[in-house]
Amino acid sequence: MPVATLASVKGVDIGRVAETGAAMLLANTYHLHLRPGEQAVDRAGGLARFMGWTGPTLTDSGGYQVFSLAQQVKVTDRGAAFRSHLDGSAIDLTPESAVAIQERIGADVAMQLDHVIGLPSPRSQVAEAMERSLAWAERCLAARRRPDQAMFGIVQGGLEADLRAASARHLCSLPFEGYAVGGLSVGEGPEAMAAALAATMPHLPADKPRYLMGVGKPEDIINAVSVGIDMFDCVLPTRCGRNALLYTFSGTLRLRNACYAGDESPIEEGCPCPACKHSRGYLRHLFLAGEMLGPVLASIHNLTFYQRLVSRLRESILAGCFAETRKTLLADQGVMSRQEACGPTD
Amino acid sequence: MPVATLASVKGVDIGRVAETGAAMLLANTYHLHLRPGEQAVDRAGGLARFMGWTGPTLTDSGGYQVFSLAQQVKVTDRGAAFRSHLDGSAIDLTPESAVAIQERIGADVAMQLDHVIGLPSPRSQVAEAMERSLAWAERCLAARRRPDQAMFGIVQGGLEADLRAASARHLCSLPFEGYAVGGLSVGEGPEAMAAALAATMPHLPADKPRYLMGVGKPEDIINAVSVGIDMFDCVLPTRCGRNALLYTFSGTLRLRNACYAGDESPIEEGCPCPACKHSRGYLRHLFLAGEMLGPVLASIHNLTFYQRLVSRLRESILAGCFAETRKTLLADQGVMSRQEACGPTD
Repeated sequence: MPVATLASVKGVDIGRVAETGAAMLLANTYHLHLRPGEQAVDRAGGLARFMGWTGPTLTDSGGYQVFSLAQQVKVTDRGAAFRSHLDGSAIDLTPESAVAIQERIGADVAMQLDHVIGLPSPRSQVAEAMERSLAWAERCLAARRRPDQAMFGIVQGGLEADLRAASARHLCSLPFEGYAVGGLSVGEGPEAMAAALAATMPHLPADKPRYLMGVGKPEDIINAVSVGIDMFDCVLPTRCGRNALLYTFSGTLRLRNACYAGDESPIEEGCPCPACKHSRGYLRHLFLAGEMLGPVLASIHNLTFYQRLVSRLRESILAGCFAETRKTLLADQGVMSRQEACGPTD
Repeated sequence: MPVATLASVKGVDIGRVAETGAAMLLANTYHLHLRPGEQAVDRAGGLARFMGWTGPTLTDSGGYQVFSLAQQVKVTDRGAAFRSHLDGSAIDLTPESAVAIQERIGADVAMQLDHVIGLPSPRSQVAEAMERSLAWAERCLAARRRPDQAMFGIVQGGLEADLRAASARHLCSLPFEGYAVGGLSVGEGPEAMAAALAATMPHLPADKPRYLMGVGKPEDIINAVSVGIDMFDCVLPTRCGRNALLYTFSGTLRLRNACYAGDESPIEEGCPCPACKHSRGYLRHLFLAGEMLGPVLASIHNLTFYQRLVSRLRESILAGCFAETRKTLLADQGVMSRQEACGPTD
């Protein structure tokens, strides 16, 4: 899922988003609550209609902002009390209000409120956040009023295998329509993430969507699919795109590098996106000249790459050659980063 | 012609530019000379190919930057000596170098180098700049090496009717493929512009393109067409778009105004552009939230509006009802500006 934080995939018009092959978009409850407010989204016919999207949508619950805006939030069993990052006003996010806000925003899938903490953290804190998230899961389910909206529970437990397993088992006893693995990609390394996933996945039902939140790099996605993850969201395609970091099937490309001046080849041969109708040299020029079109086109390319990546994974599963495809894709991801030692940055 | 200063219509991918109905794009010689340099554009196959445009292109000569960057330029009969607005390096723009640079940039139409000054200015200065522009016109023609590139002469003469007429008559004795009216939209009012045009147009041949440079607002375009102007370029559609000022057939709309919060209607009913698939309320939200997509979509809408405007003018000429259409369009341009007294700005 491309991330449409404020009901906009940054810089990319919704028609171009659809052309990337994206099926579902994610938006952020905390941010939409502040601007334009869930009432405005509701009056406009709900999130999808508000942003002109015809596919399904999902909202996170604000739990991630408990982590990312930690300096402005106080967490108790009752909920998370924020100071707005915009004007300092008080925002009271409880399981009940997180559900109420998400029901008004009206995505197809809502997420339970969870308590996300940075990693590594002491086991006692991880356990406390995990237990709190479970209690909040039950309160979120109790607060539901919209039968037409799905709700996913979120596994917590940091890097503690037994806590992850306990969290997953408890959540699966609750009537969620899907399950997410949360609290990763918050400072732990790739091996730690893999271990946490390995401890969690056996306890999640294969017949319901399993969603790894906020992940990740292409290699993270490839590896997570191999253990059964079905859904992802990540800001990397657009955020990296805005910073001239381009993803390809042979690794990343830093477009500002001098070696791409005058490079007549597209970012990636065979990519059908509008950016790949241009040369790397032209796109580099856009970034060096500070032209807005650079970030726009780079974002579109990266979104397209991510969709092509998961599409290849999906096809390889159906064709029964996932293991081989995974190996090839992972190997290829390493190539260009080394090749890029070709020239100095400017 | 939408303006693609640095070989990019700001924020709008080239496919979307084509969808606005635009037939021809303008780029700026001075800016492309600095970034990425005419050699880079040349090596990429010329301006159109560099930016992925399949239609015709035009480059200005740098004459406008003599005016807009006046503090950094010293003009003599020899040419204009600039200090780069980027790094202070010296740029020597003479009629000969302006032609050589434009020939390497490789647009379909090049413009002579002219001396643009602000208005009002004393008659003696206007006369001097006009005479100098004529001398440069002859030197530009003498410097031409590419028979496949058209070149237009540029009428100067400020607001002095006799100087405009003299400039136009002299230029028309020279073998240019088209003629431009320059040095307007630089501080004079609409009446003064109309008077300068009236003094010029009778002296320009109707069987060659007549191009009013850097103009303008919808009403300026409507009025200029009525006296025979065939071509325009202007940054207003994109620059205003980036600032949330939207053009419609019933006047302008300042999208940040509070009265558009929750407004479910599109910017303009019947407009086929991607912005008009959204509500005014959504687009206003994008601007208030600082989302890049706001400027992108507003630019696309304004470019589409300008193309629809000239398309209506063109059709009315062919249908023999131009005078009536002009009257209606001008009257309608006044409406919304008054209606907009609906709410305070925020």
